[in-house]
Amino acid sequence: MTTTTNKLTQHRYYLSEEELPKRWYNLAVDLPYDIEPHLHPKEDRVAEEADFDWLWPTECLKIELLKGHYATDSWIDVPEPVLAAYARFRPSPLVRARGLEEYLDTPHRIFYKREDLNPGGSHKFNTALAQAYYAAQDGVETLVTDTGAGQWGTALALACATFGLKLKVFMVRKSFDEKPYRRNLMRMLGAEVISSPSTMTSTGRGVLERDPNSPGSLGIGMAEAVELVRTDPTHRLALGCMSYYAALHQTVIGLETQAQLAQAGVSADVLVGCVGGGSNFTGFVAPFVTGDDVPLCIAAEPSSVPTLTKGEFRYDWADYERQTPRIPMYTLGSDFVPPPIHSGGLRYHGKTPILSSLVKNGLVTPRSFDQQDVFEAGRLFLRTEGVLPAPESSHAILAAIKEVRNTPAGDRPKNIAICLSGHGYLDLQGYADVLDLG
Amino acid sequence: MTTTTNKLTQHRYYLSEEELPKRWYNLAVDLPYDIEPHLHPKEDRVAEEADFDWLWPTECLKIELLKGHYATDSWIDVPEPVLAAYARFRPSPLVRARGLEEYLDTPHRIFYKREDLNPGGSHKFNTALAQAYYAAQDGVETLVTDTGAGQWGTALALACATFGLKLKVFMVRKSFDEKPYRRNLMRMLGAEVISSPSTMTSTGRGVLERDPNSPGSLGIGMAEAVELVRTDPTHRLALGCMSYYAALHQTVIGLETQAQLAQAGVSADVLVGCVGGGSNFTGFVAPFVTGDDVPLCIAAEPSSVPTLTKGEFRYDWADYERQTPRIPMYTLGSDFVPPPIHSGGLRYHGKTPILSSLVKNGLVTPRSFDQQDVFEAGRLFLRTEGVLPAPESSHAILAAIKEVRNTPAGDRPKNIAICLSGHGYLDLQGYADVLDLG
Repeated sequence: MTTTTNKLTQHRYYLSEEELPKRWYNLAVDLPYDIEPHLHPKEDRVAEEADFDWLWPTECLKIELLKGHYATDSWIDVPEPVLAAYARFRPSPLVRARGLEEYLDTPHRIFYKREDLNPGGSHKFNTALAQAYYAAQDGVETLVTDTGAGQWGTALALACATFGLKLKVFMVRKSFDEKPYRRNLMRMLGAEVISSPSTMTSTGRGVLERDPNSPGSLGIGMAEAVELVRTDPTHRLALGCMSYYAALHQTVIGLETQAQLAQAGVSADVLVGCVGGGSNFTGFVAPFVTGDDVPLCIAAEPSSVPTLTKGEFRYDWADYERQTPRIPMYTLGSDFVPPPIHSGGLRYHGKTPILSSLVKNGLVTPRSFDQQDVFEAGRLFLRTEGVLPAPESSHAILAAIKEVRNTPAGDRPKNIAICLSGHGYLDLQGYADVLDLG
Repeated sequence: MTTTTNKLTQHRYYLSEEELPKRWYNLAVDLPYDIEPHLHPKEDRVAEEADFDWLWPTECLKIELLKGHYATDSWIDVPEPVLAAYARFRPSPLVRARGLEEYLDTPHRIFYKREDLNPGGSHKFNTALAQAYYAAQDGVETLVTDTGAGQWGTALALACATFGLKLKVFMVRKSFDEKPYRRNLMRMLGAEVISSPSTMTSTGRGVLERDPNSPGSLGIGMAEAVELVRTDPTHRLALGCMSYYAALHQTVIGLETQAQLAQAGVSADVLVGCVGGGSNFTGFVAPFVTGDDVPLCIAAEPSSVPTLTKGEFRYDWADYERQTPRIPMYTLGSDFVPPPIHSGGLRYHGKTPILSSLVKNGLVTPRSFDQQDVFEAGRLFLRTEGVLPAPESSHAILAAIKEVRNTPAGDRPKNIAICLSGHGYLDLQGYADVLDLG
């Protein structure tokens, strides 16, 4: 038996703590095409740092606008305190989905990267730590953010606890009402959690006036967060997705996956992830898309929020109140209020510019999936792998299953890697509703 | 820097898949004292296999009554299909609690064994797999069980899915009503979940007649399960705790912990676990209590269910209806209905005979803790380690914290290992109630 074969019999691929990536991969500077710049929200010009120094922590703003060494360097050192915090939970394991493979009776190999094991239960902690650290460096007292399913708010609350910051979270009302567990978890971590639309901002009051029963959206939540930051100089904004900096920080996922697939003795043929704003997906595929042999990269989105599969590529605002830069992206329109599906993290009108550019340039293939099928795939994964995926992640699982089923028999075995972006323990009400568990 | 020092700087200790224990440790035969036998429920004689062949899978019964090689062999081979199933998720990591240590500002080292990462979210899967396998070998169609918090029912549902069995779960009514997520999770896995006391058995009907609002108890649930098995020859009983076989299967936890502490270059001074029936705790400490240098083994129980700290050691029934063997143990009486605390898994009147014997013979030290303090300890662990423990496990965390705080300054650094028996994601309502999160 060769070494390679031996390694393929393993179930889990761990990296040692020394193998934790010490640099993020700055994909933007290595792309074979130019990325269009962010524009001022109202004026007809490129956005500058001075336009938004009230909004973002300094370093996040630099990354977002590709200023300084972010304009030129492919590799960005992870700051030492963030690296120390990463080392407490990373590298995360890559696992071979043998139960699912057996169920599918397939020669193809399915791997999944376990970002659900991170503190907070999702990939979000990777960027939350960095953002909280940069804010603390600036002397910021309070971070403000929005959250959908609550994964981002939970991760940021933990990160704020780590670096000594206060946190205010505007939580999309539908999730606030339906996911009391997640709300309680954020409060347990010391965060102030506010149902959005709220009466705390003029944005929220406006929405409620027009529709007192508004279920909210990430766009509205972000607009409320931006308004609050504008009125208090001790506050700054944190974003779980829809920013280049979040995607940059998530490249630890892709870098580790690359090393772990090498450890297994294989190279990726297919990479699959779910897309809300697009940060976990972009970080997952980043190290793979600038190589010679680019895998098929499938971005899985809900058919009810078909940003990449049916949206338009144009400049649009990330927030409902049009206070943030206009960014070049696939969008359903910044006034799009998505239907109240159970994958709160995917209810967003746009996709981050870096991901949109990858799709526009053919490096990433978007596909959309129906909610019922997605939740069935989540149940199948639970039964075969013993792991309950977040509904968001179940989109990626379904995409992988379809890829296996649609591959002609006799094709050589493919190596398929899924980014399991989060766990679904706090989404069981959604599973119960969709799967009719009573 | 020596190798040992290097290893102590690690955060996580993994074993390779080859290092997965291939044998369970049959502690009962190595103890320096005799364990009193199980007695017939009603007759004045020792229980025999023929008395209970309708109740248990054959192999479980043999283990329980220490028949055949279980009477003589210290090591029991894990059956190949169970070992293969273990390899899908074990060995579990041992983690250094650096965040908690920093918060406590202590020179003592705290480690925790992550049984919360198992499929099903707790240690229960270790024995569920073995029991389902043995039942399938006997040609059993349906397993029947009781569950408190739902961790056991979830694990058994997964195990039944693995080995092709049906499952009926009597879930203690208080948990059934307060933990819909856990109930839904079991249903998602294909189990039939019944609120106990139920109208399905004469036991349940009797309880409801006397008290229509009975919150239920593990004793009542087990009696219902036993009654159902008695009336259907295709059914057999599965027990998550209160059996020697469950404790035997859980020795994988202790065996791995022993190897991981050796990897870290230390030996255990203190071992801490929570006790419901006692299986995870017994499996955790088993390989340590027959050595030359027995660590301080602390069994943490709720002060409202003080079986080990205030109960009486005598023969008693494990079930409310007195159909199972009389067993020698610490007990609060088989008719004890515990107060409706939020640690459902610890609401049990007795402790398994093997653990009771360890306490009676001074090898294990029981301590009891108040609910409010326990939940505060769980919150502290979440904030410092990023891991949300089950309330049951938070008893062990609190015990470890108190051990650190009560050790005189200047004592040499102790190595303290906690068995983190399960996660608390489905217990957030309990945390919200006790911690008043609104």
